Amino acid sequence: MADPRFFTPSGPLGLDQLAAIAGAEPRPGAGRARAYRGVAALAEAGPDDVSFLDNPRYLDAFAATRAGCALVDRRYADKAPQGMALLLTDKPYKGFALVARAFFPDEQVRPLRHRSAVVDDAAKLADSARIDAGAVIAARAEIGERCWIGPNAVIGEGVVIGDDTRIGACAVLACCLIGKRVLIHPGVCIGNRGFGFAIDPEGYIPIPQTGRVVVEDDVEIGANSAIDRGMGPDTVIGRGCMIDNQVMIGHNARLGPGCIVIAQAGISGSTKLGRHVIVAAKAGLAGHLTIGDGARIAAASGVMRDVPAGTSVAGIPAMPAKQHFRQVAILGRLARGGKLAKDE
Amino acid sequence: MADPRFFTPSGPLGLDQLAAIAGAEPRPGAGRARAYRGVAALAEAGPDDVSFLDNPRYLDAFAATRAGCALVDRRYADKAPQGMALLLTDKPYKGFALVARAFFPDEQVRPLRHRSAVVDDAAKLADSARIDAGAVIAARAEIGERCWIGPNAVIGEGVVIGDDTRIGACAVLACCLIGKRVLIHPGVCIGNRGFGFAIDPEGYIPIPQTGRVVVEDDVEIGANSAIDRGMGPDTVIGRGCMIDNQVMIGHNARLGPGCIVIAQAGISGSTKLGRHVIVAAKAGLAGHLTIGDGARIAAASGVMRDVPAGTSVAGIPAMPAKQHFRQVAILGRLARGGKLAKDE
Amino acid sequence: MADPRFFTPSGPLGLDQLAAIAGAEPRPGAGRARAYRGVAALAEAGPDDVSFLDNPRYLDAFAATRAGCALVDRRYADKAPQGMALLLTDKPYKGFALVARAFFPDEQVRPLRHRSAVVDDAAKLADSARIDAGAVIAARAEIGERCWIGPNAVIGEGVVIGDDTRIGACAVLACCLIGKRVLIHPGVCIGNRGFGFAIDPEGYIPIPQTGRVVVEDDVEIGANSAIDRGMGPDTVIGRGCMIDNQVMIGHNARLGPGCIVIAQAGISGSTKLGRHVIVAAKAGLAGHLTIGDGARIAAASGVMRDVPAGTSVAGIPAMPAKQHFRQVAILGRLARGGKLAKDE
Repeated sequence: MADPRFFTPSGPLGLDQLAAIAGAEPRPGAGRARAYRGVAALAEAGPDDVSFLDNPRYLDAFAATRAGCALVDRRYADKAPQGMALLLTDKPYKGFALVARAFFPDEQVRPLRHRSAVVDDAAKLADSARIDAGAVIAARAEIGERCWIGPNAVIGEGVVIGDDTRIGACAVLACCLIGKRVLIHPGVCIGNRGFGFAIDPEGYIPIPQTGRVVVEDDVEIGANSAIDRGMGPDTVIGRGCMIDNQVMIGHNARLGPGCIVIAQAGISGSTKLGRHVIVAAKAGLAGHLTIGDGARIAAASGVMRDVPAGTSVAGIPAMPAKQHFRQVAILGRLARGGKLAKDE
Repeated sequence: MADPRFFTPSGPLGLDQLAAIAGAEPRPGAGRARAYRGVAALAEAGPDDVSFLDNPRYLDAFAATRAGCALVDRRYADKAPQGMALLLTDKPYKGFALVARAFFPDEQVRPLRHRSAVVDDAAKLADSARIDAGAVIAARAEIGERCWIGPNAVIGEGVVIGDDTRIGACAVLACCLIGKRVLIHPGVCIGNRGFGFAIDPEGYIPIPQTGRVVVEDDVEIGANSAIDRGMGPDTVIGRGCMIDNQVMIGHNARLGPGCIVIAQAGISGSTKLGRHVIVAAKAGLAGHLTIGDGARIAAASGVMRDVPAGTSVAGIPAMPAKQHFRQVAILGRLARGGKLAKDE
Repeated sequence: MADPRFFTPSGPLGLDQLAAIAGAEPRPGAGRARAYRGVAALAEAGPDDVSFLDNPRYLDAFAATRAGCALVDRRYADKAPQGMALLLTDKPYKGFALVARAFFPDEQVRPLRHRSAVVDDAAKLADSARIDAGAVIAARAEIGERCWIGPNAVIGEGVVIGDDTRIGACAVLACCLIGKRVLIHPGVCIGNRGFGFAIDPEGYIPIPQTGRVVVEDDVEIGANSAIDRGMGPDTVIGRGCMIDNQVMIGHNARLGPGCIVIAQAGISGSTKLGRHVIVAAKAGLAGHLTIGDGARIAAASGVMRDVPAGTSVAGIPAMPAKQHFRQVAILGRLARGGKLAKDE
């Protein structure tokens, strides 16, 4: 059960309400009269909880769960424990996400301008915004409706933040335009001067970076990530991108809509990602590359060349994933003392 | 010598005092009448310093040191320079650590509630705690005896911090319970929403993360590390874990007691580490793995499978370390033009 | 064109002014009468912009650019579009950097001590320094002429900061001496206790770290990087080093002058780098190594041994780059089914 120190579930919710929320169909019979109070994984759920089965690997846990209700594909319905309420759907995980959000909606933003926040007279703040203690908002910054600027966050001159966006504590934003419904976690640094300089025997000469960072709507950026501003062109994070913790994105990089970049990955300057590219944890992309729509970059890989749309790459240097796994297998065979067959 | 701008040694300490502190036995003879004022490595130590020999590789440095006193295993005692005082022990490095801590104890916490700190009326602070300038402490947070909350740190609603714990400047804590004698360095982010969402063509649907981060007693967490809260279960950092800088730990991960996680390593969601696991620098662990007690993960490795207790793994993908080094050797031989012998 | 919300170009500048700034020679003819207002890459430049050609790969873009003026080596001058002004130089990129800096000089520091900053009475601040909102400056810290301490930055006791140095928002500095003209980006943590402890069954015993971090003049340190203080010796960042975002540098490490360390790289404790070493993105260096002058460490490599001066290494474990690429090639051939020729 969620710790009430941190989470207060709304609800309870009845089976028909849950079905409507999840876009699912209640199985006739059990559970209609009951109400549910929360969500949990199969192994941890109790009679008041809604759970889900998304992967047949967990059929045993499904058969044994104490959950009062579960979202499940109809083909597995007959594996459910006796008496459990079922919500039938071909997207159980999506349904679970929607139900969980119904029980635990994002905290509403209460308007606030904390007395210890420092807001420049030339900043424009929506009355509905919440500015927490110690936040610093510089001249000409614009903060949209229902924005939430966390404690000790720093919003630089001219930064524009769209409606319903939340900026975590101690995040630092400069030279950037942030869209609507964006979630920026604590400690994120956006808009610093990109790492560009002329190399000269007398010393490096930093090149002014006069582009911006443009973060489109519905993006999430994880804790302690860093996104540098462009050198002239902008650095762009496309609509709906999900960026995990400690990710680094260099100057002039462009991510198309819906990319997923997992923890500790890095994208070097001027590299362009298409739509819905997945960059797994700790992967690194060299600069000036083009990564096609829907490409998948495996964890801990090092991408030195363009990646065509729809392909998966792995390894350092990254290559088509199948080829990489074949190399891994062959090297393993050699090390185990196997001969190289003729056809290898 | 330690820069007095930053460090003030206590002391001086005599040989018998040092012996008691280190659990060591003074060699009869030299040095009893003297007092010592600090600690240093063999090469840098002077007559007022205590040093140590822990590794026979440094016997030459030991023979040449100007240290006034050294902790050493008795079998190397006869290699010491003439007239140097010796403290005999079978744990010279532990002894050195204890002696160093006697000269340079942690700074005592003086009670303070800085006028510029913002403490919610509904927070509970021990009178003996120190709350530095600009710190923000939200409603219902609980701060234990002799805690030290650094400048501009942010403690979220309901967060509980045990006695004698120190939180670095600009660290951000939410949805977490922190034990006693924990040391959290600056810039650490704990308790953010884990990276979990349902993938759907209409957009990603974040899943509420209603677990906590539980940091047990005596843990250290390095600068700019990030630990996400659980999705339902908690993320747990076991008693006495040592976590270095820029480490990332995903939601639902569990570290048993005494794990060591070195800089820039990452542990993905739901992965469980047993007791005293060592994860070396830059290693990455995939999600949902089980790593047995005492396992050792080599630097820069990528762990995709469970690791049995007591084993060492290396490589991307990680494999038993011996096998990995054999692969490295064979590939090296091939590249140098060697033939594959039959028995390989 | 640079967004006026964030950047205000000085200028306009005429061709002769530009030539003097860049140390270049104007080609007789076109453009002398005109003035220029900014800089841009070849593809984006317009008639008011100065651009450059540094790499013959971009000759096509050069021939097609709409830039009003370009810096170029004289051997490519005849490829320029009709009527474009040219500044002839054998260092076009350096010239471009200088011109760009003339259009967009660093913002001048206006003296300020923001009323919300917390400055200890025993700190020494130059009158010309700028201390932004929420910054915290502890006792005995010394802040030089024209320094700029960003919002919510934290400067610890006794820290010394040289003239013309800028510290980003939410950066945290302790136990360090910072040189002149240093640029420290937001979220950087400097001077924390290094990761050193004695391992003992009863619990790890942290070893006091009584060294400092010494950052010499003209260094840049990227966002969210972390540099630990030494254990006794200092951690030293040599003059003119360029350090990118999310870099980690362990205790006692020493970087000679002019090193470049790119994003997400890590340098372990006590490792010494000579002059002008390049550590590419995500590379990791083990502890206690010596890396010679001018060595180059490839991206995502893992260095376990000393690297001689002037050599390039790559791979995990890192080896001479040629050998690494040979291994990559051979493994690729094996996986594609190639035989190992006798001479391999």
